[in-house]
Amino acid sequence: MWGGGDYSLHTIGAKHVIDNTGELALEALDAIDVAGQAGSFQLADFGAADGGTSIDLVRRIIGNVRARAPSRAICMTYTDLPRNDYSALFNLVHGGRPDVKSYLEEHDNVFVYASGTSFYLPIFPAQTLDFGFSATAMHWLSRLPGRITDHVHAVGASGEELEVIRGHALADWETILLNRALELKPGGRLVMSNFCIDEQGRYLGNTGGVNMFDTFNRLWRGLAEDGTISEAEYQITAFPQFYKTVEEYCAPLTDPGSVVHQAGLRLESAQTRVVPCPYAARFAEDANLERFAVSYVPTLRTWSETVFSNSLDAARPEQERRDIVERFYRSYVDLVRADPTGHAMDYVHIYMVVSKV
Amino acid sequence: MWGGGDYSLHTIGAKHVIDNTGELALEALDAIDVAGQAGSFQLADFGAADGGTSIDLVRRIIGNVRARAPSRAICMTYTDLPRNDYSALFNLVHGGRPDVKSYLEEHDNVFVYASGTSFYLPIFPAQTLDFGFSATAMHWLSRLPGRITDHVHAVGASGEELEVIRGHALADWETILLNRALELKPGGRLVMSNFCIDEQGRYLGNTGGVNMFDTFNRLWRGLAEDGTISEAEYQITAFPQFYKTVEEYCAPLTDPGSVVHQAGLRLESAQTRVVPCPYAARFAEDANLERFAVSYVPTLRTWSETVFSNSLDAARPEQERRDIVERFYRSYVDLVRADPTGHAMDYVHIYMVVSKV
Repeated sequence: MWGGGDYSLHTIGAKHVIDNTGELALEALDAIDVAGQAGSFQLADFGAADGGTSIDLVRRIIGNVRARAPSRAICMTYTDLPRNDYSALFNLVHGGRPDVKSYLEEHDNVFVYASGTSFYLPIFPAQTLDFGFSATAMHWLSRLPGRITDHVHAVGASGEELEVIRGHALADWETILLNRALELKPGGRLVMSNFCIDEQGRYLGNTGGVNMFDTFNRLWRGLAEDGTISEAEYQITAFPQFYKTVEEYCAPLTDPGSVVHQAGLRLESAQTRVVPCPYAARFAEDANLERFAVSYVPTLRTWSETVFSNSLDAARPEQERRDIVERFYRSYVDLVRADPTGHAMDYVHIYMVVSKV
Repeated sequence: MWGGGDYSLHTIGAKHVIDNTGELALEALDAIDVAGQAGSFQLADFGAADGGTSIDLVRRIIGNVRARAPSRAICMTYTDLPRNDYSALFNLVHGGRPDVKSYLEEHDNVFVYASGTSFYLPIFPAQTLDFGFSATAMHWLSRLPGRITDHVHAVGASGEELEVIRGHALADWETILLNRALELKPGGRLVMSNFCIDEQGRYLGNTGGVNMFDTFNRLWRGLAEDGTISEAEYQITAFPQFYKTVEEYCAPLTDPGSVVHQAGLRLESAQTRVVPCPYAARFAEDANLERFAVSYVPTLRTWSETVFSNSLDAARPEQERRDIVERFYRSYVDLVRADPTGHAMDYVHIYMVVSKV
């Protein structure tokens, strides 16, 4: 499926985000008295997928803890949803991939676990977690609370529909934080990078050029207008995601009246950063339009396809659904090929360090 | 694949073994002072597969612990190899299967994890495990240490070949126990059911009737004799398993000179039991020969097929390998159909309760 370095390009953006998270994580770790405590050091990756992008970060965290507390056992737990490919995760961490070096080869007294419990629930017993991190996972809502009838993503929602999804997203964020407040030991730290709307109004795929979600919406809307999909199918299509502003992210942690603040979580730092789209960067260098068009859109497809295909009527034959989705992404490729100017999926993240008092 | 209640029959034997284990487990649990200890109660299933057969046992253990220590958190960790289907496991435990009721619906403050670490290694930090159980898992060797040139299973090995595999199996058993000795808290318990050779020389598929492993061997040998497979393929075929005798199972736990005994593990009880083959039991009732032949052999096939197919030369085309394996099992069905007398895969287990001083 991936060729000519596209696989590396596909993951390199996520890797850069994790590397940014890593700098903050190691600083935050220094604030924890790892040598002065009894019991195992408990570490977690919330929303880990196959663990590949975070493996170097975990290596650095374990190396840091081990250097300061040589005899302390370290437990590393990867969390995700039940449907995640944990077999791929364990295979990678236990050294089953020749292309990935696992930290387990370097350290003993390190124990790896997985949890299939949602981060909208408690994942660890009260006050047992020393350090947690999460990269690009918490924009997924617990559920979609309502429709977005004239767009496919909350970034294009408006009026009452926007307020419903925003209200739900803020409650979801509070739930995530309250559960982490329960789990963290006093003095524990949480380092998170999440998609956001930054101080300049930028967000994923909307950093000054062509707006990616508006493009998704325009092309999907076009399929409704030409009768390929029904109006009902168009209207129920929506990513179960919400990109919060910096203020929305920080408020529960800085407002002394919030339940999260009262539960003991405090904001240590917050900053936004943009990681440039690696496909657009390569195109800027090599001006290879064909390669850009046929590699940029597939990377969007990897994380967006299920949203569009699941919105199609279940009564449609499987092949018909596949054909519609194929046509949809082909129209995106055609658009990029016709005029590549401004197409880019730059990552816009907020990086937060949170402590438990 | 399964019809007419065959799926239930297929799992009911394993379920009976777990139920036998359960009685012992609940007795053993009573010996642990669950209310008098701080921290989470740590529970483990070693070699859990999809967690389905043990779910009622876990429910009973959690209910027992919760009744005696209402506010204590309980952590349940399922262990298996990296390639295990953890997604199926988490789906089942998190209530994703309408046919299975999970204990998570009944109790809060219970946390579920998985580990992909082999039980030939430490899976938990030192002295953190309160209670572990394992059902029908520890007959799998860490590796096959040598060939069994004139049979397909250690039960048919002899001479030097038998001694090599026996020596390896006893060392493997010591490794399993030493790692559990490290993990268990003082006073902790381990309850295990494992395939064995019982006091009467019986073992899986050899309880007085036709010997199942001898049948496998005779039919596979026949394929070598008629040229379907090569002599080399026949000779390298061997289950990476060993069924220990009662004495071999117990010696490391009762001999004060053994490293396992010195590491603090003690045998509380050991007993053997035979769980009758449910297919043979149904055939004894309904005398439906055709149904017996076409349902009994497939259940053998589920756990034995990879051993035979992986022994075929990798240079053979995939379809050719499939055809050979198909022919092999068809010959077993023909044999049963021609004379069903004595065909049965009765389970022969040793049930052990072990404590840590």
